[in-house]
Amino acid sequence: MPKVRFEPMGKEVEAPAGTNLLDLAMESGIHINASCGGRGVCGKCRVNISGGEVGGGVSEKLSEKDRGAGVRLACKSEVIQDVVVGIPVESAIDKVALKALAGGSARIARAYDEVELKEQGRFDPASVKKVVTAPEPSLEDARNDVRRLLDALKEMGERHFVVDFEAIRQLPGAWRDGNWTVTVTIVRPVNPTGRNRIVKVQPGDTTDRNLAVAIDLGTTTVWAQVLDCNSGKILGTEGGFNSQISHGEDVISRIIATGKPGGLKRLQEAAAASINEVLETLFNRLELSIEDINLAVLAGNTTMTQLFLAMDPKYIRLEPYVPTAAYYPPVQASSFALHLANHTPLVVFPSVASYVGGDVVSGVLGVGMHKDPKLTLFLDLGTNGEVVVGNQDWLACAAASAGPAFEGGGIKYGMRASAGAIENISINPLTGEPSIVTVGRQLPKGICGSGLIAAVAAFMMAGIIDESGKYNFDHPTDRIRDGEDGPEFVLVYKEDTQIGRDITLTELDLDNLLRAKGAMFAAFMALLEGVGLSIHDLERVILAGGFGQSINIERAIMIGLLPELPTEKFIFVGNGSLLGARLICLANHLRAEVGHIVEMTTNFELSAHPGYMDYYTGSLFLPHTEAKTLFPQVYNNLNEAKESLKAARAAK
Amino acid sequence: MPKVRFEPMGKEVEAPAGTNLLDLAMESGIHINASCGGRGVCGKCRVNISGGEVGGGVSEKLSEKDRGAGVRLACKSEVIQDVVVGIPVESAIDKVALKALAGGSARIARAYDEVELKEQGRFDPASVKKVVTAPEPSLEDARNDVRRLLDALKEMGERHFVVDFEAIRQLPGAWRDGNWTVTVTIVRPVNPTGRNRIVKVQPGDTTDRNLAVAIDLGTTTVWAQVLDCNSGKILGTEGGFNSQISHGEDVISRIIATGKPGGLKRLQEAAAASINEVLETLFNRLELSIEDINLAVLAGNTTMTQLFLAMDPKYIRLEPYVPTAAYYPPVQASSFALHLANHTPLVVFPSVASYVGGDVVSGVLGVGMHKDPKLTLFLDLGTNGEVVVGNQDWLACAAASAGPAFEGGGIKYGMRASAGAIENISINPLTGEPSIVTVGRQLPKGICGSGLIAAVAAFMMAGIIDESGKYNFDHPTDRIRDGEDGPEFVLVYKEDTQIGRDITLTELDLDNLLRAKGAMFAAFMALLEGVGLSIHDLERVILAGGFGQSINIERAIMIGLLPELPTEKFIFVGNGSLLGARLICLANHLRAEVGHIVEMTTNFELSAHPGYMDYYTGSLFLPHTEAKTLFPQVYNNLNEAKESLKAARAAK
Repeated sequence: MPKVRFEPMGKEVEAPAGTNLLDLAMESGIHINASCGGRGVCGKCRVNISGGEVGGGVSEKLSEKDRGAGVRLACKSEVIQDVVVGIPVESAIDKVALKALAGGSARIARAYDEVELKEQGRFDPASVKKVVTAPEPSLEDARNDVRRLLDALKEMGERHFVVDFEAIRQLPGAWRDGNWTVTVTIVRPVNPTGRNRIVKVQPGDTTDRNLAVAIDLGTTTVWAQVLDCNSGKILGTEGGFNSQISHGEDVISRIIATGKPGGLKRLQEAAAASINEVLETLFNRLELSIEDINLAVLAGNTTMTQLFLAMDPKYIRLEPYVPTAAYYPPVQASSFALHLANHTPLVVFPSVASYVGGDVVSGVLGVGMHKDPKLTLFLDLGTNGEVVVGNQDWLACAAASAGPAFEGGGIKYGMRASAGAIENISINPLTGEPSIVTVGRQLPKGICGSGLIAAVAAFMMAGIIDESGKYNFDHPTDRIRDGEDGPEFVLVYKEDTQIGRDITLTELDLDNLLRAKGAMFAAFMALLEGVGLSIHDLERVILAGGFGQSINIERAIMIGLLPELPTEKFIFVGNGSLLGARLICLANHLRAEVGHIVEMTTNFELSAHPGYMDYYTGSLFLPHTEAKTLFPQVYNNLNEAKESLKAARAAK
Repeated sequence: MPKVRFEPMGKEVEAPAGTNLLDLAMESGIHINASCGGRGVCGKCRVNISGGEVGGGVSEKLSEKDRGAGVRLACKSEVIQDVVVGIPVESAIDKVALKALAGGSARIARAYDEVELKEQGRFDPASVKKVVTAPEPSLEDARNDVRRLLDALKEMGERHFVVDFEAIRQLPGAWRDGNWTVTVTIVRPVNPTGRNRIVKVQPGDTTDRNLAVAIDLGTTTVWAQVLDCNSGKILGTEGGFNSQISHGEDVISRIIATGKPGGLKRLQEAAAASINEVLETLFNRLELSIEDINLAVLAGNTTMTQLFLAMDPKYIRLEPYVPTAAYYPPVQASSFALHLANHTPLVVFPSVASYVGGDVVSGVLGVGMHKDPKLTLFLDLGTNGEVVVGNQDWLACAAASAGPAFEGGGIKYGMRASAGAIENISINPLTGEPSIVTVGRQLPKGICGSGLIAAVAAFMMAGIIDESGKYNFDHPTDRIRDGEDGPEFVLVYKEDTQIGRDITLTELDLDNLLRAKGAMFAAFMALLEGVGLSIHDLERVILAGGFGQSINIERAIMIGLLPELPTEKFIFVGNGSLLGARLICLANHLRAEVGHIVEMTTNFELSAHPGYMDYYTGSLFLPHTEAKTLFPQVYNNLNEAKESLKAARAAK
């Protein structure tokens, strides 16, 4: 693996060929100024290449002379061999000050991807297509069309069917148009003892087109994924906001909104419309027909699920917080206003409790903690944060109302982790100049959850904010200013953005993030206490949420969101809800495990836990009021950074 | 049992107290003129009572003097004790001539009525209600609403449930409105291994209201019955015409009509509307709410079933006559435009073949021939006539396109067997004067299938028609005349009708009846030949059809519709399709037998049978061209009647 040495710091790291140099620097704790998000247009991320070559990196922003002298733009360069990268003086910052910014990106779990499933012989899609051929009827063989089909399937070893009405309707035409060869779409049962459902019949051989969609209906965001049930591959992923937001930002206000006349209907329609918008974008981009979507799987928290299914969620918010149901009978996607074909069945993930829903069940399934002996903490960082702890023998869960900050909601320039979202940031503590990386390396449009966490961590190390999240106007940077919403920090000036406005973070934004991380921290601490464990008993922490590619663990620890544990204990799985939904499209045998997860999970009602509020109020500081005992390493690093900053300024 | 002697014939019969005297006379082969259908307004059915008394029989139509002399109207009299009934000269006819008119009403089967089912411990309604009580939730017991319900049911010994979406939606409100007592409506599964479906939840105890409807969707007529699932009783029965008739009288023309743009939709809607009309009449009369109907069961022939389910019936009429399916998945009644509540499931009887449908399966189930060792012939006399022969070991079936005559269709004054329909007739062979009995003893409105058969048999004996069904203008009666549709016989003059027009039977009507009976006769003869049996092997003949109370067997034999066998071998079950549909509402265990019947039944395609056309063309005569060999007794009786008529006329 090629070695890259950053000078003058003397830091050497290994990186696979093809690694982007700006990303590598950022992950290695090397700050390089950059404001265009990695698109190569601001021209700030200049580095001097020596002792080797990098791929690319040449730009109009560099003069002929610079290019000849080995100057390259880091954001456009990729590692191809051993190389020495010189960081110019305008980017370089003090070694010591950056100690805490180094490394720490969570390992990304490849939990049950299609390759693994196939290798393990566990790839059995919930929706399969079979070509069936039968002899033409005659007076001697006038079996009905359905019987002819089932007899032919039996000869192929396929039994125990129920044929949907629509499929029965299609069959006579399909048999004859296909000259007694048809393709049937079969949806497998949850339990091996159940019946296979024939949901569609087409003339001839159409086995090449067999798709499924996995849907995550979040309080703030909606994600969907199109899967090829033949190959198991993800054909596309797309997200959007849940337009129910106009009825309130959290589940409680949504539930209240259903109490108005026609409220439940409006919220159901808003949820369906939000999903439809995401699906339509996906289908248009991938040039797909809804006729080829043979299964839809939806996971959401309990309130989102009940709203989508038009089930009055009133009692979710009233003590003792009783949801209507855990399991839902199978339904047709189109009967809930989803723009999918009439034949497409919709599988809805079951819930554990009023505030621990199908999204968590899906996440637990996705990461497989219900079958693992390791004691694991699972954190789903969403508007409704959820915490699960346990292993193959037991699972306990609790919910935290985090608010929408992790998903870019309630943040002035917040956005989902989609193209143009600032997903990583580092800041030169001396000058306050940021280095910005965006999703898709486009000009910045806004900031997503992982960018927010990175920004706050960088602010802490650079002395830009104090421990209560207020801006320090004494800092030499002129990026701190009074905006129309109060004190703010300019992340990107308008000329380097897609939106033509300065992208800032306000103190109100910081407050929202503090409340979100405080709620999560208090939830898992109280839950661990409730089951008689401490964070040091944990063998593994799995993080899920609609962040970008990853979340920087050390920064998340630094702000007090995650417990101070060795970074190798952390695994990031991205959108856990979507992961589980995808899995049961591709590995039908896992569907039987869903019920097992629900039954083995005990819900803890945190409002009844005496320590919860103490943890929460302490967590509204950075990293925590009890930083010295709960976050000793962060506490030391912050002090060291403060000292070295002071020394560096004095030296100037 | 009281004895009644008719004089001057000297015929003595026994009859239960309460028997109507006109009915008794007619069944005993004693002719009494009567034209008002038994309503007591024509005053023609005068009899002289001596040696005892009858109940009633007094009318304004009788003078004080007559009354004192023991004159009574037969139609208003009932048997109460031994009595001698003198038939006045204007009614009396020659003994010998009437020999063939005597007796022969089929025994009416009480196949599996609710009393029998209860006695046998086999009364287990497919839809049951259970009152469920549960503890109020608390923070310590925050089970979801569905779980709370299922746990409580489990304590009652009820397991294996699937809860319908609508029921889940109703549950939260019902629990709380009913103060943690609810009533659940459970529909039992077909197989004991299946799941119970909870289709409805109501607050409190509503167990007293639990109804089901059985529906027979015929080509010409629609019948429905409301059943009380608690008591098993029939609350009401109602019939109407299938308004699809405007698209053609038989299934072939209906199938052709679906080929026009929008045709299938129109025919589906017509079927649903026809059923809705009958149901509405029933519900209004019984003052029922559709919310209390918890199950609907529909039986119809294959074409009617496919049309109702909006499944293209095109291939039913094209060789090799392949239907789409035998079995249909469970559906909601309301999704097929039936005016029933959303929660009401609809069970549709499966078909055997394109021309042997769910109505026959239902009939076979109703009479239990699939479990009986006796070799049985089952005849369903409808527009689509069906024939089944076999016993507990095997069943063979065939279909006959009889046309609508048996149901009063295609007959100028034809009507269903509802109030005012002439259902029985006898005729004085000398004068041609008829005695008329109507359904409900109302003034005549028209004639139904059983009346038609009785009329033709009486015409034969009286020499009013010849063996090819043409009127004999040499007969002394002036009721034979040339009408606007050709030769006709006046059954009732307009002054004695409800409709203010003469009710007649035209030669075209007789032609239609001849074709209907010919098709039925040819069908069972060809089927018996196909399985290597003769009519003399039969131990039992079961007749089904939408006739009135009964069908006179000897008359049906006389016209050549039924085989010449001892009358005690015949059993009449009325509407067989409705009977089976009713049974599976009340005896859920019988549902599993439905599939058994379908699987054990072999369909014979009569068009492929060489002898079929010969039987048919021979059957277009009265009783048959081969009368001497096929109907020797009828042949003799007709000859005897002819001779004695000749003698009687000569004597005058």
